[in-house]
Amino acid sequence: MMRYSHRVLPDLMTLRILATGGTFDKHYDEIEGRLGFDACHLPQALRRARITLPVVLEELPLLDSLDMHDADRQRILASCLRADEPAIVVVHGTDTMKETAAVLAAAQLPKTIVLTGAMIPYEMEHSDALFNLGFACGIAQALPAGVYLAMNGRIFAWDNVRKNRAAGLFETA
Amino acid sequence: MMRYSHRVLPDLMTLRILATGGTFDKHYDEIEGRLGFDACHLPQALRRARITLPVVLEELPLLDSLDMHDADRQRILASCLRADEPAIVVVHGTDTMKETAAVLAAAQLPKTIVLTGAMIPYEMEHSDALFNLGFACGIAQALPAGVYLAMNGRIFAWDNVRKNRAAGLFETA
Amino acid sequence: MMRYSHRVLPDLMTLRILATGGTFDKHYDEIEGRLGFDACHLPQALRRARITLPVVLEELPLLDSLDMHDADRQRILASCLRADEPAIVVVHGTDTMKETAAVLAAAQLPKTIVLTGAMIPYEMEHSDALFNLGFACGIAQALPAGVYLAMNGRIFAWDNVRKNRAAGLFETA
Amino acid sequence: MMRYSHRVLPDLMTLRILATGGTFDKHYDEIEGRLGFDACHLPQALRRARITLPVVLEELPLLDSLDMHDADRQRILASCLRADEPAIVVVHGTDTMKETAAVLAAAQLPKTIVLTGAMIPYEMEHSDALFNLGFACGIAQALPAGVYLAMNGRIFAWDNVRKNRAAGLFETA
Repeated sequence: MMRYSHRVLPDLMTLRILATGGTFDKHYDEIEGRLGFDACHLPQALRRARITLPVVLEELPLLDSLDMHDADRQRILASCLRADEPAIVVVHGTDTMKETAAVLAAAQLPKTIVLTGAMIPYEMEHSDALFNLGFACGIAQALPAGVYLAMNGRIFAWDNVRKNRAAGLFETA
Repeated sequence: MMRYSHRVLPDLMTLRILATGGTFDKHYDEIEGRLGFDACHLPQALRRARITLPVVLEELPLLDSLDMHDADRQRILASCLRADEPAIVVVHGTDTMKETAAVLAAAQLPKTIVLTGAMIPYEMEHSDALFNLGFACGIAQALPAGVYLAMNGRIFAWDNVRKNRAAGLFETA
Repeated sequence: MMRYSHRVLPDLMTLRILATGGTFDKHYDEIEGRLGFDACHLPQALRRARITLPVVLEELPLLDSLDMHDADRQRILASCLRADEPAIVVVHGTDTMKETAAVLAAAQLPKTIVLTGAMIPYEMEHSDALFNLGFACGIAQALPAGVYLAMNGRIFAWDNVRKNRAAGLFETA
Repeated sequence: MMRYSHRVLPDLMTLRILATGGTFDKHYDEIEGRLGFDACHLPQALRRARITLPVVLEELPLLDSLDMHDADRQRILASCLRADEPAIVVVHGTDTMKETAAVLAAAQLPKTIVLTGAMIPYEMEHSDALFNLGFACGIAQALPAGVYLAMNGRIFAWDNVRKNRAAGLFETA
């Protein structure tokens, strides 16, 4: 109870959001006729969310998480290490979200880090992206330090989650 | 730390969502040419969110919160009292969200109750409704028992918040 | 056949679009909590349509067509008179579209003038606005001089149409 | 003038819409993480358009137009031949729209056939699909018999058009 009172109520939490790509940020390229990356959708999503919380948006290279290598995960870790904010949301591809979470967890940072993403791109109707972003921004302010995955309206511990690719959803491992 | 571990990680939380109307659920009536209420948008929003968490959606009369009387707030309280779930999200109009929160807080229920809503109806482009719903569903699972308002990406204690109507946002009182 | 060949194929038609308001352009004002007018949605709609046709967009005062007086219709007529383009689309409220059409028809201009609008505002999901705009932009290039109403996927002669307000659709008179 | 009066005003035109796939109907498959075809979007688009015109929607196999072979174009031609309606809109991929138009034109049917499509899928924000559908449905009712392409707000004769793939737009040949 004290922790909560200390963390959320008296001081306005500041939040860092790291954009790393993934389905959340996929964009339809009408010249090529396929999905890729162009401008990050998070500035638009955050305006739409009417957020008054102090938020720092840091845009890393936007990648399909199947194309991420260890150097890409180290770059995400470096951003978390440098961050002044106690709460970080990482917008990430779903396919290797768990692998990045493991890298971040190994560093044992005294921060609350929440990885989220989307099954349907932000710019498509019926996308889950905006819900997931809100979900992650909420729990990043409310949970104690640690690394979590936030998908399907559920909070997962980083070491007890897997993506069920056939069903397209996350479940405990 | 123990509380959190107990509440979120081992057991899958169940969540109740109470629909009470408000801007979130306003619908454009093309015959009358004005905004009112028709079918609740939450079933559509929850499908879109791809939630696998056990969620009970309870639809109360959909009202503009300026039209709510004490009986309407008592009905919301009665639903919270009856609920088996430890976490409740109340989708509510923004204008009297604080008044309903005070009624719910006075009951001192051992539940986490989060009121949220929207400044722009769910069915309009650029609506904040889906973000706010995700935000509230996240913190309802992560915060200790109490009554909170969740708007503008911020978590407010029920007794330290006000709507700034001129600016269209919530701030501490 | 000659007329068609003359009008459409050899020379690229230019098109004037007159924005006059109506449900098409209604905007949700989140401070007031009601629908009104703010910026015109036609620049956004025309970008989205990826139009390469030379189009002149002329924005007149945006009004609910129930609030239009004779002076407002005379202003629309004056714009049609001044226009260099042989084809004009007038985006207009549905309630008095027929009255404005009668004023324009009385002038017997050697132009093709098509009035259209929307039953659901452009900025709402499931809006008919973009379909109607495309429909009107097409027939304005293809029909001979005259005044037409274009709603519900149908082309109406200006003097043989009425809005069935109970059903929310247009039909022959 | 007589032709127009005969075709549009006294009798309510009936319209056939042939769905053949293309970008218009591409759907994001969240399990595979790529665009393909699932249910046709035209029933949803036509409801949204609030069409009261008698429309027959015929769904042919949904294909990327780069995957169309001569048999596919013959199937589209056969549908046009069988159709009772004097006006036909063919929703088609943009890459080989011109090739299909040539097959249809060679048959010299006494019908108005308009091919259209989209550069951005219907289900994505900022899609041109609904505008193009409206545009095509309008000119199909207004133009004399012949085969036309309708894209970018322009009406093209089937034998004087090409897709500029680098720019992602249609222009005269």
